[in-house]
Amino acid sequence: MKRLDNISTLYCLPADGGQDAVGAIDDAALVWEEGTILYAGPAATLPREMNAAERLDAGGRCVIPGLIDCHTHLCFGGWRGDEFAMRLEGASYQDIQAAGGGITSTVRKTRESSMDALVDKAALALNEMARLGVTTVEAKSGYGLNIDDEIKQLEVYRELGQRQPVELVPTCLGAHLIPPEYREQRADYVELLCERLIPEVAERGLARFCDVFIEEGAFDLQEGRRILGAARTHGLGLKIHADQLSSGGGAGLAAELGAVSAEHLEYASDDDIAAMARAGTVAVSLPLASLYLREAYLPARKWIDAGVDVAVATDFNPGSAPSYHLPLALLLACINQGMSPAEVLRAATRIAARAVGLEASHGSLQAGYQADIAIIDAPDINHWLYHFRANACVATIKGGRIIHDSMGLMS
Amino acid sequence: MKRLDNISTLYCLPADGGQDAVGAIDDAALVWEEGTILYAGPAATLPREMNAAERLDAGGRCVIPGLIDCHTHLCFGGWRGDEFAMRLEGASYQDIQAAGGGITSTVRKTRESSMDALVDKAALALNEMARLGVTTVEAKSGYGLNIDDEIKQLEVYRELGQRQPVELVPTCLGAHLIPPEYREQRADYVELLCERLIPEVAERGLARFCDVFIEEGAFDLQEGRRILGAARTHGLGLKIHADQLSSGGGAGLAAELGAVSAEHLEYASDDDIAAMARAGTVAVSLPLASLYLREAYLPARKWIDAGVDVAVATDFNPGSAPSYHLPLALLLACINQGMSPAEVLRAATRIAARAVGLEASHGSLQAGYQADIAIIDAPDINHWLYHFRANACVATIKGGRIIHDSMGLMS
Ligand SMILES: [Zn+2]
Ligand SMILES: [Zn+2]
Repeated sequence: MKRLDNISTLYCLPADGGQDAVGAIDDAALVWEEGTILYAGPAATLPREMNAAERLDAGGRCVIPGLIDCHTHLCFGGWRGDEFAMRLEGASYQDIQAAGGGITSTVRKTRESSMDALVDKAALALNEMARLGVTTVEAKSGYGLNIDDEIKQLEVYRELGQRQPVELVPTCLGAHLIPPEYREQRADYVELLCERLIPEVAERGLARFCDVFIEEGAFDLQEGRRILGAARTHGLGLKIHADQLSSGGGAGLAAELGAVSAEHLEYASDDDIAAMARAGTVAVSLPLASLYLREAYLPARKWIDAGVDVAVATDFNPGSAPSYHLPLALLLACINQGMSPAEVLRAATRIAARAVGLEASHGSLQAGYQADIAIIDAPDINHWLYHFRANACVATIKGGRIIHDSMGLMS
Repeated sequence: MKRLDNISTLYCLPADGGQDAVGAIDDAALVWEEGTILYAGPAATLPREMNAAERLDAGGRCVIPGLIDCHTHLCFGGWRGDEFAMRLEGASYQDIQAAGGGITSTVRKTRESSMDALVDKAALALNEMARLGVTTVEAKSGYGLNIDDEIKQLEVYRELGQRQPVELVPTCLGAHLIPPEYREQRADYVELLCERLIPEVAERGLARFCDVFIEEGAFDLQEGRRILGAARTHGLGLKIHADQLSSGGGAGLAAELGAVSAEHLEYASDDDIAAMARAGTVAVSLPLASLYLREAYLPARKWIDAGVDVAVATDFNPGSAPSYHLPLALLLACINQGMSPAEVLRAATRIAARAVGLEASHGSLQAGYQADIAIIDAPDINHWLYHFRANACVATIKGGRIIHDSMGLMS
């Protein structure tokens, strides 16, 4: 049994309440055993039998649930920094494609990379994410775009789940785009996804969710409905990349199919917002992509007012969001999406847990939940989000185990 | 004598060239002795007598001059995170003032703070800045707004210069705003600045520059001319906070008076841009303030095309830019000011050195310059700026001494 005390404010993130319900408790203590929380509440009312727990000192800092990055494209070959520089100098999408860049270059490099190389590369990112307080990461395939290489990406996630402590939630995004070799035979690729990739992924337990990119140039509504129908038949949860660059009806489809989440959504229609609210579908906003692409940010107030739970994630990928700095995404959500510090904290814990189907066990600091904990070097979350630092997280605990400690928690 | 080798690319930042001249040298080596660079160039042409130097291994990473943050308000009492949260929830400037917030609350808390408390607080920031690769920081007073407390801030900088390794360039900003107790006697405050504060600061060598905030609600052009005239008489260099929220002629005054730099400048007129180009005045852009305030970014292309050198700095302060993450400011300058990675590197080294009067000795990696060095965990600067990480700087060297080392340079 372990006890963390000297907590200035504990944010327990209760199950009930609106987007800004964070359950702040001053002068708190937190007790866990074997990875499960036994007590989270005022130090003054700690049950006597927990006094004997091994004591860790939070040093008067604030404590939040381990952050959940509920939307990443974690596994990919190569990088595209030169393309970033070209775009700044005015290169068009066509110029970049002509220079061998763009997403097809990532597909090529992902296919060329060995599984070991991909595991090692993603592990570096996960290690830095853990240091930022992130304890759970949703991770999509989608740069393989054929049976073998999509499965290779998902096997990378399985391997990473065994080799390092950050928990991964794998999503099959074979429907990221039509691969170059199927450009003239779209229907054949959709068929391959529905009849071969999705059944195999589901049978081998390689993914918990299936995601489809519904946008001009990717998949249309009818294709999306067919692919997600196959995914549902095979027991996968559903997600949709929708309405990022134009209003294409993806958000409405997410609601119609009972998807757990829809992502991006900057251009979703009011009707589709209302449909998502009725369906209880989480809206996952991705402000780093808006930043890097200089595109619109999610009008989050409209969504929250409509009764939709809004999550915030990084969208980490080598093109439109080459950063896994979730706290920066949260700062941008405050400044450019009009969300409060409390709202973005819930967006990256409790609501993010719901977006990956883990709300019964993750994203809250309450008895019975998993002991996923971040200690933040700030008196409260207003200060944490406002004073942007390289890393304000001084310790991270995953399933009761310390996985990052720059404050001497162990000494 | 020390030798850093195994450098994938060395950016030497030559004196001559345009905004994007970074002098990239592949497979390079760098040698220094007693804090001064002896050689910076290809490893293959290293003079034989330098082979004996003690060897440090950059691990195939890229190497840049230590970054120079040429505009900060480093020393202040208190923070204003709650005000950040209030603003996000729609509070007006008046609401915030009524709640005891705003810049006057920082003035009150700075006056109330002891010198020791201010030194300790600023030292924490400087330590994190050093870890980000920053080796020189311009630091303004301006939250004292009376003789004793302005001098207290400048003495904080003097003390910090002795106590920690980051080099400080102190600037007197007594003309930050009219203090509350002089609101009805503006002329008396200007008189106090010109006749008492500036002479004392100059005589005691407490500041190298004098800065004036020229903006509606702060100082007008005539007051600015008088204050900077006094500063010049007493041998101080000149800087102006100008045209941040409206076009007020501050940039033109900077050119007219031969100021070394003018700052913010988002709304400067075309005539004033041309005048600054003729005068050789550096434009210091502050993209973090634009981010936090949701205000316009500097149209940097227009400035560069007009022949003005553009620096980028953090503006670190507890209100409009509560972050000293200079690499984030550089990323924002790329994305939102249309500057290339090469241009922002020069903006935070060579040009920033010019903005603080140190271009003869700082901001370049060439023989004769000070050995201020940052090792960046990236193959090149495109990758560095594009892949935003908590901290890509793995080692920092100031005046030849290692002051940050997370890569095992010393092992
Ligand atoms: Zn995505
Ligand atoms: Zn300033």
